[in-house]
Amino acid sequence: MGTFPRKQFVAAIGASALLAACNAPKNDQAQISSAEPAGVGNAPPAGGNADAIIKARGLNPGDVDAALRTFVPPGKHDDYVMFASGGHSGQVVVFGLPSMRLLKVIPVFTPDSYVGWGYDFESKATLHDGDFKDATITHGDTHHPALSETDGDYDGRFLFINDKVNARVAVVDLARFETKQIVKNPLMINTHGLAVTPNTEYVIETAQYAAPLGWGYAPLNAANFREKYRGLATYWKFDKNKGVLDPQKSFSIELPPFFQDLTDAGKLDSDGWSFTNSFNSELAYPDNWDGGLPPEASMSQNAYDWMHVINWKAAEAFVRSGRASTFNGMALISIAQAAQNGILYLLSEAKSPHGVDVTPDGKFLAVSGKLDPYVQIYSIAKIKTAAARSDLKKGPYGIRVLPLTETRIAQIPIGLGPLHTQFDDQGFGYTSLFLDSAVAKWKIGDESGKGWEMVDKTSLQYNTGHLAAPHGDTVKPRGKYIVGLNKWSIDRFTPVGPLFPRNLQLVDVTSPKMGVIFDAPVGNAEPHYAQIIDASLLKPMSVFPVGFTPHSNGIDPNAPKAGKEGVRIDGDTVYVSMTQARSHFTPDVVHAKAGQKIIWRLTNTESTKNAMHGFAIAGYNVSLTIEPGKSEHFEFIADKPGVFPYYCTDFCSALHLEMMGYLLVAER
Amino acid sequence: MGTFPRKQFVAAIGASALLAACNAPKNDQAQISSAEPAGVGNAPPAGGNADAIIKARGLNPGDVDAALRTFVPPGKHDDYVMFASGGHSGQVVVFGLPSMRLLKVIPVFTPDSYVGWGYDFESKATLHDGDFKDATITHGDTHHPALSETDGDYDGRFLFINDKVNARVAVVDLARFETKQIVKNPLMINTHGLAVTPNTEYVIETAQYAAPLGWGYAPLNAANFREKYRGLATYWKFDKNKGVLDPQKSFSIELPPFFQDLTDAGKLDSDGWSFTNSFNSELAYPDNWDGGLPPEASMSQNAYDWMHVINWKAAEAFVRSGRASTFNGMALISIAQAAQNGILYLLSEAKSPHGVDVTPDGKFLAVSGKLDPYVQIYSIAKIKTAAARSDLKKGPYGIRVLPLTETRIAQIPIGLGPLHTQFDDQGFGYTSLFLDSAVAKWKIGDESGKGWEMVDKTSLQYNTGHLAAPHGDTVKPRGKYIVGLNKWSIDRFTPVGPLFPRNLQLVDVTSPKMGVIFDAPVGNAEPHYAQIIDASLLKPMSVFPVGFTPHSNGIDPNAPKAGKEGVRIDGDTVYVSMTQARSHFTPDVVHAKAGQKIIWRLTNTESTKNAMHGFAIAGYNVSLTIEPGKSEHFEFIADKPGVFPYYCTDFCSALHLEMMGYLLVAER
Repeated sequence: MGTFPRKQFVAAIGASALLAACNAPKNDQAQISSAEPAGVGNAPPAGGNADAIIKARGLNPGDVDAALRTFVPPGKHDDYVMFASGGHSGQVVVFGLPSMRLLKVIPVFTPDSYVGWGYDFESKATLHDGDFKDATITHGDTHHPALSETDGDYDGRFLFINDKVNARVAVVDLARFETKQIVKNPLMINTHGLAVTPNTEYVIETAQYAAPLGWGYAPLNAANFREKYRGLATYWKFDKNKGVLDPQKSFSIELPPFFQDLTDAGKLDSDGWSFTNSFNSELAYPDNWDGGLPPEASMSQNAYDWMHVINWKAAEAFVRSGRASTFNGMALISIAQAAQNGILYLLSEAKSPHGVDVTPDGKFLAVSGKLDPYVQIYSIAKIKTAAARSDLKKGPYGIRVLPLTETRIAQIPIGLGPLHTQFDDQGFGYTSLFLDSAVAKWKIGDESGKGWEMVDKTSLQYNTGHLAAPHGDTVKPRGKYIVGLNKWSIDRFTPVGPLFPRNLQLVDVTSPKMGVIFDAPVGNAEPHYAQIIDASLLKPMSVFPVGFTPHSNGIDPNAPKAGKEGVRIDGDTVYVSMTQARSHFTPDVVHAKAGQKIIWRLTNTESTKNAMHGFAIAGYNVSLTIEPGKSEHFEFIADKPGVFPYYCTDFCSALHLEMMGYLLVAER
Repeated sequence: MGTFPRKQFVAAIGASALLAACNAPKNDQAQISSAEPAGVGNAPPAGGNADAIIKARGLNPGDVDAALRTFVPPGKHDDYVMFASGGHSGQVVVFGLPSMRLLKVIPVFTPDSYVGWGYDFESKATLHDGDFKDATITHGDTHHPALSETDGDYDGRFLFINDKVNARVAVVDLARFETKQIVKNPLMINTHGLAVTPNTEYVIETAQYAAPLGWGYAPLNAANFREKYRGLATYWKFDKNKGVLDPQKSFSIELPPFFQDLTDAGKLDSDGWSFTNSFNSELAYPDNWDGGLPPEASMSQNAYDWMHVINWKAAEAFVRSGRASTFNGMALISIAQAAQNGILYLLSEAKSPHGVDVTPDGKFLAVSGKLDPYVQIYSIAKIKTAAARSDLKKGPYGIRVLPLTETRIAQIPIGLGPLHTQFDDQGFGYTSLFLDSAVAKWKIGDESGKGWEMVDKTSLQYNTGHLAAPHGDTVKPRGKYIVGLNKWSIDRFTPVGPLFPRNLQLVDVTSPKMGVIFDAPVGNAEPHYAQIIDASLLKPMSVFPVGFTPHSNGIDPNAPKAGKEGVRIDGDTVYVSMTQARSHFTPDVVHAKAGQKIIWRLTNTESTKNAMHGFAIAGYNVSLTIEPGKSEHFEFIADKPGVFPYYCTDFCSALHLEMMGYLLVAER
């Protein structure tokens, strides 16, 4: 009962087929048969046809250079890994550079039947942690991936990502490239900016569309908007040992309803400060239906908007001193408290900005107003000096205003619609231009305001949002490339219907003149923002210890074990403890009666890397991919009588199609 | 009320910003500002650095050739489009060749929040058409994409795709690259093979794991398995004018529980016939838990399995003559009827086969037994001759058996684990080898059995399932490439955790020796099978006529129109008729009371290609991408009071972030 009669099998089909089909290799090699057939070679192509191919394909010298710069030969690895947000796919999209090949999609806020995310008990629980007032949300609008940092550089351990629609933040564990935790912000309903502090003390989540805090209600009119609608900056405490956000040690700062936009954290000399744009100093709100202006007009009237300059270390101390209040379980510093305790300041920035980016040395801020043709440069030393003054004037909401003339040191004219800045290792900044559909390269100058000047500009196709650069947000950018996260592709790709792909363009910045060397279509996501890390800094697992479950973050004592499988019935519940390995399930039949609840645990008992197995069953909506060693758990009511095949969905072996079983549900 | 006061807007922000931000271009160009900034050039890279790059990157001559063969310069288009199944992603994955770039993911059986598939009323209805006994299924295991054919060649109009887990078939409309229809098979619970007849008269869906027909129940034992468990071949009639499958004109043929596998349709001389492998002539079933053998052993015992040879034109005539029965609404020909009326025959094929492929000239069949080292070649003329004999012996289930010795004309030894064959335009067949991890190239011989010989073989990395070739299933293969759909990637890519990507390898077959020229990781899907079409045969729309909805397949009279938007309350239902265009929603505020039902229609009134707009709203689980012209519709109960921002999720314009509104839900 329940043992695998190996002797019968060997006799039945012969030794060679046994070798091929039955032995689960215990090493890391492919399931390759032992003998090469005689007489036919296997050498890789010899090459030497370059000129003929160039001529036949009509490649010009620039094309040839670009091909050679971006090609990663079969079997070789990319140098960098780019983690991009998936936008309204709700996921994280992972690319290799320079090849721009898509390596993986990490599901976060949206169920994914390929991975099985949202189809087993544990991932459903993680998704439910992000529920909004008991409503299960099955989508997200991911915007800003932020890699964990140590001493201001990416350390390859974790990735944080936000959901704009419902203000959630997720933690992705890069040891296994899986979402580990989702938290729902208890105070704000909508978010946009996300950043980490230089030693990942905090993950900073900032609001976008204002609403009454605590997901409250207030009618929409000028007085209420000004007095009851609020923005927010939440500082989620990250526990680096456990690898989770700790709501108990987190805090928020109430902000005016200025529609905050992007956030960056200071580093080195500016460590302890964070900077957040906003674009609605007008305190406007949608009013077109009632005879006023739509937001695109009403929020674009003022020549300046407000940057929020926040001393988060002062905020942290304030919370630890016990003076903050608590709202929906989170420590909250009011606007008045923040204004009066050296926590929050306002600083003018150009019209409707999108980007705020701290230079690698931590000394300067680059701010771009998307309806303004300059990159605005601020000195952080001068900001800190101004913040220490005792005679600052108060601005809106009683918040002290840092003088623009004392803090802004340069303005670099670069073109129309500047959005976002990244940096290289040669002393240059790069800013995207949405309306000019280009990227501008400019020299980082000095504290006196000298030397800040544009040196190059090149077209991108088309209409660039953010840029990404290797370690471009850190104290130590690696240079070499810029990636333009372009929004429109128009004519760049083979037509694939009315929903056009995006175009992520790889730009070479090592040559005297910048140039686009690769167009990468993205047809399943909208990468709003990305971070690029040296691939050697990522050290993921390749298998799990056998019996691993994510929630236990180790070996789960309930995980089914090889040789100890079973089916147990207790009242009206059927407990299935099943294993899978090439190429069978144990047990391969499960009996139930209609109406019984089935609690099913399944362990992939392989220890060979790449030996994933899948699981799907007819009629009961279960779709899983289980990696070597991992154990998963799912439950359902077997409400329908019938014969329901289950099988391995992941092509695992020569006898993959035979890897199946039956769930038999009899009538009562 | 509700008009957009342009005069105020112009005065407020100035003419240049108006040009940039407010004008929705009516042509197809990007939103590029009119003037290039002076003094900075925009020329593409000049090139001429090939030798330096080759040296710096350590490329060998074979790498250089491969780079030049596969590179598609920025802005140029791929030559071919490959439609691949997504496996348990439940989707169709679309690549360009030779670049192997991922152009699009077409959602089919699994909801997709990026496209909005499964988040609006119409796509939810399409998904529900595939329900199993009122259970909504939110996943699929797509296996075999089949492009529609005219005169035996792909015509670029439709794509059919199946779901293995719950036996559904979908139609994808390639005018818009969207799923148009899903049908649930009323008789079988599990399927695998899918093929089209040469003029898309029928889409053939064949079973895999046997079960009682009609989704019934019978205890699992030898007698029941033999007498009550059944396979099936369903011939779905395709209405080419309406672009839908017509269940009323479809029929099925009951088959023995041999676990059917793959299917191909005959063409030219063999038009009217279809061929289906199977791998369980043993009539075995999972029995390990009860002391017997697991299926991987018990189904691998016999040296031969059964190919089903079906005369579908005879079956069609039989149904039209009224002699078929009806079961669950579908015309059904029993095994006995099929056996006695020249519809169904059995023919031996080598042990546990996976592939059955008709040669381009329609004259021969290539069959590969995955535990047998040969490609087996059958003459279809000899099959037809044998089928016409009156003295054929009866085999299992009373089905006449075609003699192997009279029909098989050659066996080509190629190696271990042959699976699947494709063809080129030079008279060669290519067969994948799972266990040898290779592809073999062999010459197509003649009717006498001469000339069928292997000429080349090369390693693939690793463990190949199916192959794809340009027009490789048709009467007119285009040659040039083979794509190996490899199952294991092991060490080919940068490590991304325990869930390894697949490796789709592009193989050049034009050179004297075949060679791998590109490794394409697929990290979000498992492509089991793919078809490759000349890109020029695809002629999708780039925009929809304004007011288009998929279910009306034209302009829907209920679609909101520009200038005629509104919110209407009728009892406890709020009807919202809204439009979106750069960069605003009209209306930009919606009021409701808690508990009211909201029926919300939204039209993207743009007519510029690439001008998609998104829609998401906090708290109510709606995520849509709406293409230019399209109108969509969603409904929910506004059960939670509060302030819920809605906004455009698709970065559409400079003032994209300002494109928002509020749903205000007051307490009762």
